[in-house]
Amino acid sequence: MNPSDEYRPGLEGVVATETAISFLDVDHEEIVIRGYDLIALARHLDYLSVAHLLIEGCLPSPGENASFTKGVLGHQTWEGPIENVLRNLAPDGHLMDFLRTGLSCLATYDPDLDDHSTDATLRQALRLLGQIPMIVANSYHIKHQQPSILPDPELGYSANFLYMITGRKPTIQESQAFDQLLTVYSEHEMPNSTFAAIVIASTLTDLYGALVGATASLKGPLHGGANEAVMRMVLDMETIDQVEPWLLAKLAAKERIMGFGHRVYMHQPDPRAVLMKELFQQLVHTPEQENLFEMFTRGEMVMQREKGLYPNLDYYAAPVYYLLGIPIELYTPIFFAARSAGLIAHIREQYAHNRLFRPRVRYTGARHLQLD
Amino acid sequence: MNPSDEYRPGLEGVVATETAISFLDVDHEEIVIRGYDLIALARHLDYLSVAHLLIEGCLPSPGENASFTKGVLGHQTWEGPIENVLRNLAPDGHLMDFLRTGLSCLATYDPDLDDHSTDATLRQALRLLGQIPMIVANSYHIKHQQPSILPDPELGYSANFLYMITGRKPTIQESQAFDQLLTVYSEHEMPNSTFAAIVIASTLTDLYGALVGATASLKGPLHGGANEAVMRMVLDMETIDQVEPWLLAKLAAKERIMGFGHRVYMHQPDPRAVLMKELFQQLVHTPEQENLFEMFTRGEMVMQREKGLYPNLDYYAAPVYYLLGIPIELYTPIFFAARSAGLIAHIREQYAHNRLFRPRVRYTGARHLQLD
Repeated sequence: MNPSDEYRPGLEGVVATETAISFLDVDHEEIVIRGYDLIALARHLDYLSVAHLLIEGCLPSPGENASFTKGVLGHQTWEGPIENVLRNLAPDGHLMDFLRTGLSCLATYDPDLDDHSTDATLRQALRLLGQIPMIVANSYHIKHQQPSILPDPELGYSANFLYMITGRKPTIQESQAFDQLLTVYSEHEMPNSTFAAIVIASTLTDLYGALVGATASLKGPLHGGANEAVMRMVLDMETIDQVEPWLLAKLAAKERIMGFGHRVYMHQPDPRAVLMKELFQQLVHTPEQENLFEMFTRGEMVMQREKGLYPNLDYYAAPVYYLLGIPIELYTPIFFAARSAGLIAHIREQYAHNRLFRPRVRYTGARHLQLD
Repeated sequence: MNPSDEYRPGLEGVVATETAISFLDVDHEEIVIRGYDLIALARHLDYLSVAHLLIEGCLPSPGENASFTKGVLGHQTWEGPIENVLRNLAPDGHLMDFLRTGLSCLATYDPDLDDHSTDATLRQALRLLGQIPMIVANSYHIKHQQPSILPDPELGYSANFLYMITGRKPTIQESQAFDQLLTVYSEHEMPNSTFAAIVIASTLTDLYGALVGATASLKGPLHGGANEAVMRMVLDMETIDQVEPWLLAKLAAKERIMGFGHRVYMHQPDPRAVLMKELFQQLVHTPEQENLFEMFTRGEMVMQREKGLYPNLDYYAAPVYYLLGIPIELYTPIFFAARSAGLIAHIREQYAHNRLFRPRVRYTGARHLQLD
């Protein structure tokens, strides 16, 4: 069959798959995660419980929660030569390339690699949820020729993730803010990285390979890079008085302002951004931090007035990362670490109901050329 | 906007992009490469000329050909610590995982990595066309704890690729057969791996990342793994008398037979398979090889009679690889090396006419659940 004539660039509005994992309810601006509202999940449950919901399809019982958490934490040591491989990468490389290479290497040491049964992919999920924060946090130290920081057995999952990044035991407020940040990033229907992962998984390749493809996608400035760009933008403005002229100048030059709007929805404020703004305000303790908060709210006001655009998750997640003391180049890798739960859920779902992705093209090139 | 109700699993028949690179002309069973017939290109030009056609959009003049070839061959030494990284991977790992990790690592050492201009991506293309055969061929030796084999400056591109694999200088007939094999694998419209690459590239991530995603896709048994599966299948049959009962038993058990048919076309013999069968016959010099040829043609006859299916490229490429003395586990990595020219062409085209891929889903899960 030759392809139909209909063509929607970027597959905008095209249904690419069925899923029971999540859905952007555009009419109500709600992010539905296996039937629950994502924001309610972030407020009431911890990240690993939501990861269980995503990956296993149901909220964990207390016993399941303990077993799932133990399974994840049991994988928080260096495996094989991963650390050595990361220390062989170019020290001016991007941390997403460290993560991509680390995951690709880790795959070769997984004894279950080619097993797509639900038991095997659950074991892979636990291993990855344990290993990814280690690789993400320590790729920063390794890149900067510092020793690795291993988890402290007295801390929980998210607290340890933050501890491995900063080397400082976080306060309860900081741990909870970071945990909520991870949860709101955990899943978002069918963004480019999730789509890339299920496209790749549909060849029945291994779960790690599908995740590696997603790291490559999330690195892109049109996708995961936005949170880093937001922070650099606001720091570039320097003072609160410069927020408005800075934005107006960029808008006049028709430059893209990161952190606002979304292809699919956002006729109201992004509920994830609202939660992040709340956490941002709670983390403000000094006059400099107060000033930063005012810069962000000023920027929100200007963009609303000038373009009618609402801030998205990246806009208010960036200063939460910043006040937690996280280096800017780690924002995108942490986004990936959080999203790994959703990605793994989609890859497992793809294996369970597989159909190879193989679309067609509209050919716009020459025809009937002959070699001389 | 909520997504439309139409849903085609695997995007079958859906136009996902416009391209001037290639097109499967289903009505005429012709593979059109920038206006030319792929089989004519394979018969009359060498692989690097076709790579130039794919990547630069036109056949090279003699001067361009010399410059392009020189640019590629100039990248055939070990760069950075790539060899060391590969020697850190699990010795029982899949060679596609070696390739995926090697490419991911190589990215961090490319000074042009974040530059998507046509000049920069051409430099990246030359580097990758040089490095990929080195990584592919030597990952086999590294996995088997053998020393690397570096190119011989007296040999051309395809001859060197074969030499790095086997350690033996190929005959002219062998080099030409291998070169034609690389060319027929160089491009094929929008298979899963190419689709994965452009989906990833549409975030404006780097070219290496998009290729890394394609390696993960091509590893899958529903995609690039078919050529390996074909060879193991025929070797498993052992004798010519067992070809027919072996196939009939599998068909009776409704098992999938690798190497026949194609989602998109094939109401006539795959023209690439026809060329490969011709090369296969030319490479037959011994009674054992003659016997292998008869086993393959018997299999073709049985499948045509029983299922009306024609052999695809993988079916007759497998024995060409085999008679060239190439280890079976290298078939898929070589497929990737050949396809890298087409992949790079598509990634550059995506950068030039970008629209982020971000489809929608049909949600089949629960709604309106409340946390207790």
